[in-house]
Amino acid sequence: MSTGKLTIDLNAIAANWQALSKIAQVETGAVVKADAYGLGVAQVARHLATAGARQFFVAVAEEGVALRRALGSGPVISVFSGHMHGDADLIAGANLVPLINSVDQMLHHVEALPAHPFGIQLDTGMNRLGMEPSEWSALREIALAQNPTLLMSHLACADEVDHPMNEQQRALFDDMTQGLDVPRSLSATGGTLLGEDFHYDMVRPGVGLYGGLPFAAAQPVVTLDLPVVQIRDVAEGETVGYANAWTAVRPSKIATVSGGYADGLIRAMGAKARMHSDGIAVSVVGRVSMDLITLDVTDLPTPPKSLQLIGAHQSVDAVADAAGTIGYEILTSLGARYARNWRE
Amino acid sequence: MSTGKLTIDLNAIAANWQALSKIAQVETGAVVKADAYGLGVAQVARHLATAGARQFFVAVAEEGVALRRALGSGPVISVFSGHMHGDADLIAGANLVPLINSVDQMLHHVEALPAHPFGIQLDTGMNRLGMEPSEWSALREIALAQNPTLLMSHLACADEVDHPMNEQQRALFDDMTQGLDVPRSLSATGGTLLGEDFHYDMVRPGVGLYGGLPFAAAQPVVTLDLPVVQIRDVAEGETVGYANAWTAVRPSKIATVSGGYADGLIRAMGAKARMHSDGIAVSVVGRVSMDLITLDVTDLPTPPKSLQLIGAHQSVDAVADAAGTIGYEILTSLGARYARNWRE
Repeated sequence: MSTGKLTIDLNAIAANWQALSKIAQVETGAVVKADAYGLGVAQVARHLATAGARQFFVAVAEEGVALRRALGSGPVISVFSGHMHGDADLIAGANLVPLINSVDQMLHHVEALPAHPFGIQLDTGMNRLGMEPSEWSALREIALAQNPTLLMSHLACADEVDHPMNEQQRALFDDMTQGLDVPRSLSATGGTLLGEDFHYDMVRPGVGLYGGLPFAAAQPVVTLDLPVVQIRDVAEGETVGYANAWTAVRPSKIATVSGGYADGLIRAMGAKARMHSDGIAVSVVGRVSMDLITLDVTDLPTPPKSLQLIGAHQSVDAVADAAGTIGYEILTSLGARYARNWRE
Repeated sequence: MSTGKLTIDLNAIAANWQALSKIAQVETGAVVKADAYGLGVAQVARHLATAGARQFFVAVAEEGVALRRALGSGPVISVFSGHMHGDADLIAGANLVPLINSVDQMLHHVEALPAHPFGIQLDTGMNRLGMEPSEWSALREIALAQNPTLLMSHLACADEVDHPMNEQQRALFDDMTQGLDVPRSLSATGGTLLGEDFHYDMVRPGVGLYGGLPFAAAQPVVTLDLPVVQIRDVAEGETVGYANAWTAVRPSKIATVSGGYADGLIRAMGAKARMHSDGIAVSVVGRVSMDLITLDVTDLPTPPKSLQLIGAHQSVDAVADAAGTIGYEILTSLGARYARNWRE
């Protein structure tokens, strides 16, 4: 075994879903786009379906097809990018619900798949996906006559509890959807934690299911252990890695682990990152290379067989801090070479 | 089609291999680790084998097994991480050549797979993989008696032509291997370009095959086009994306494309990145999100159906500059959701 070992705790994912569902007290969907944030959409979605989830969300139709194969018929699978040209066969074949983003998509959908269910995505200020208020005003009677299954929008600043944008988007969403007798959804993980006003008829947590911020109470889900290829002694003054990026200031023991930026261990984390051996932290030295990372293990009592990047001693978000990014990117970057082990 | 379209020019890869082979004038291997730098190991390696490559290199035994399946018997497949515990069945079953990195690996290899071919990786100063000079002195007679197929090392600073480390590593490699009558290899792409003294019996280009620096004369290999999901008007003063990261300073048209950091479009590139529509550059605005990127397309003469991130108008290395990283990481991060099209 010369690859890293990625362990995914499916029961923790289900527990996080249940905890968010308890907070929301409304129907609780599950966002499983990007291969369930890098953790395996088939395993994750099946486990969540067993736990009671009935509404799943993906980014693109191709993901919906794979998810339908994993889940079978029954659960609702909605697609955030809506109905793109060329997707009619995928949408019909896998019985997906496109979340229509524009007048263009609406016209295309009704023409390509008349009577096929759809939802509507509204823009309330993020200016990324969804119909603008003016577009919605013009189209709304026609759209409602086709019985959309959901009216939804997405918050731009939900991770910042006190950001005025949250209330501004909520108020606009209210304006655009009040009294229409169609189920409504505004919030992902962040919005779910903003309180009852943000819950409407359904919440759609993503990152919180996978143990990431802003759901600080989440159970951790991921463990990542990287096997040590070899350990060497380097003398004071010797350099390690590409561009001689690190110089030993004392006689040191350097461990090389299997795992690098090709495995999603973002190169920018460089020497700011740490790993653990039985709870003792060791520092990355030199540059993260494509398949390998070097660490200073001089102070460990015994030579380690593997080092842990993510787990009990270091969260996904702590790794993200070292890399100057957010936990979401650490998760979705987790590479294809790891041996994945789903624990239930 | 709601995913990005990644086009890989296999003939360009073969042409780059031939160009490097012509420079080296010695046996020219091909490094195809990390799924051939994200471009598809089966397609790339088969094409290179047809072009004449007979020596392939991967990072870990698991990759070697997949590569053997793609290539069939015949080509030599060497494994940089050597012989790790638990890998004997993979190494024997797929007839891989482990590049032994330490006395530990040597003992383990001879015990687990006596008479199975192996090479030796020597450390000449990078302090990442391979036997130290002192280790090699102690082991060398025993190792040579087992007929290793290759003696190799790896340069730490080959991308900087004038770095004194290059000559220092070359001299040490000479010292450690002279007169031993075993084929020798020191250089990947960078070293191949440093001149004849660095070529020995075999060069092992990686990134240069895939169109990346430091092989400035490489033919470009990758084209990446992202479909536009929708285009909206935003008024002066409106914000776009997570955390309201961008504010319009004029009435603007904002295009949302399908593709984000879950597709390897590194979040750090943020608003420094550009894409192209028929050769006209447009700027990313706001944050790169998981599945989507927003761009200011106000100045385009016609609304684009897709935007190009990598291609004739912007190289892999130019994208890397925007993300504060190197072309290698852009390539190996290319995500699983793209529709891949191998052109030959």
